[in-house]
Amino acid sequence: MESRNIKVIAHIRSDFPEKFGIPRQSGLVPNRSRIVFEPEYRDREALRGIEGYDYLWLIWEFSEAVRDRWSPTVRPPRLGGNVRMGVFATRSPFRPNPIGLSSVRLIGIEETEEGNTLLVEGADLMDGTPIYDIKPYVPYADSHPDARGGFSDSKTQKVQVSVPEQLLEKVPAEKREALIAVLAQDPRPSYQHDPDRVYGMSFSGMEIRFTVSEERLSVLSIEEK
Amino acid sequence: MESRNIKVIAHIRSDFPEKFGIPRQSGLVPNRSRIVFEPEYRDREALRGIEGYDYLWLIWEFSEAVRDRWSPTVRPPRLGGNVRMGVFATRSPFRPNPIGLSSVRLIGIEETEEGNTLLVEGADLMDGTPIYDIKPYVPYADSHPDARGGFSDSKTQKVQVSVPEQLLEKVPAEKREALIAVLAQDPRPSYQHDPDRVYGMSFSGMEIRFTVSEERLSVLSIEEK
Repeated sequence: MESRNIKVIAHIRSDFPEKFGIPRQSGLVPNRSRIVFEPEYRDREALRGIEGYDYLWLIWEFSEAVRDRWSPTVRPPRLGGNVRMGVFATRSPFRPNPIGLSSVRLIGIEETEEGNTLLVEGADLMDGTPIYDIKPYVPYADSHPDARGGFSDSKTQKVQVSVPEQLLEKVPAEKREALIAVLAQDPRPSYQHDPDRVYGMSFSGMEIRFTVSEERLSVLSIEEK
Repeated sequence: MESRNIKVIAHIRSDFPEKFGIPRQSGLVPNRSRIVFEPEYRDREALRGIEGYDYLWLIWEFSEAVRDRWSPTVRPPRLGGNVRMGVFATRSPFRPNPIGLSSVRLIGIEETEEGNTLLVEGADLMDGTPIYDIKPYVPYADSHPDARGGFSDSKTQKVQVSVPEQLLEKVPAEKREALIAVLAQDPRPSYQHDPDRVYGMSFSGMEIRFTVSEERLSVLSIEEK
């Protein structure tokens, strides 16, 4: 079988150390992440002109979904987990090549000890995800606002989030909005509806515990890990 | 250096046997192409539900741009070929990984002797280009119509095309609109302005010869190859 060797050019630093809680698509949550280039690609010149764009494409590896075999169908969580769809009709990570595609908002270039990094908003990538390519978002070719979106679901706020104020104060001020937006998406699998079940989610070095009953998500505790 | 093995899952059949004349982005020209899966991936089930989407993403190999080395800057043809931009601020094929990204309109699934194929419109891929992944276009995550587009240029019709009627009759009726749209983009490199120069472009098994003077492209001959 024909195949190609693709290099890892960068990794992302995000607030999501595990899969649970990661937004199901890019752009749903205003969480900030940082793209750190591999030493060979830490060249400021390679970013010349990138500030002229509002959005970037990231092409990356679903590093948690690497498999030797592929399946023609998958069961998207959005459909409740029991309807099979063709893998090429979904954005599922379990595909012949575990390649992810996300548009993220470019906040800026920031120089760090690891060279020039890209600060971005709205990434749906787990911390440490390898990146293969970064491209500018070109609206005249990439934007089709009236396209039919199949079975996908655009509702970003799925539940009301309730967080006691003394718990919210444990979260750094600049992370609060993103955390609430992550929770408002309802991170539970669609097929779980037990109102007594306590869920735990890791976010930005904190462990957040919550329950969901009807349309309300209630945070029980927030602890540093 | 970290790297990954990526499989070729399909190839495209397009009207562009060579680079000259290929639209500079996807969606500019209503040319039709066919995606033919590799035998291992010719499974109708893998396409179940794909008709619910208007557009697809293709992630593919810039097969003519595979290089051992990379350069931090490139000179986009749209800027006249003498301004350097950071490679990550362009859609240039000459990038650390020669990965291309295009949105194409899905016309339909067609069964052929090579299994179920996808008929698509607007691809900017050379005939035979290897494809790594096919994903549905999800407008709520992928569409940013108001994004700033940097230096990229959205003008699709750059020149008036003049084709004598007896030449146009040599072109199959269903290919005429696409051919004229390809020519209207002005396939010349931006830095060439010699009105006497005769250009030759291959399209759908034909050789098209033309000149460009001021804002007018004049077709001189159309011959089967």
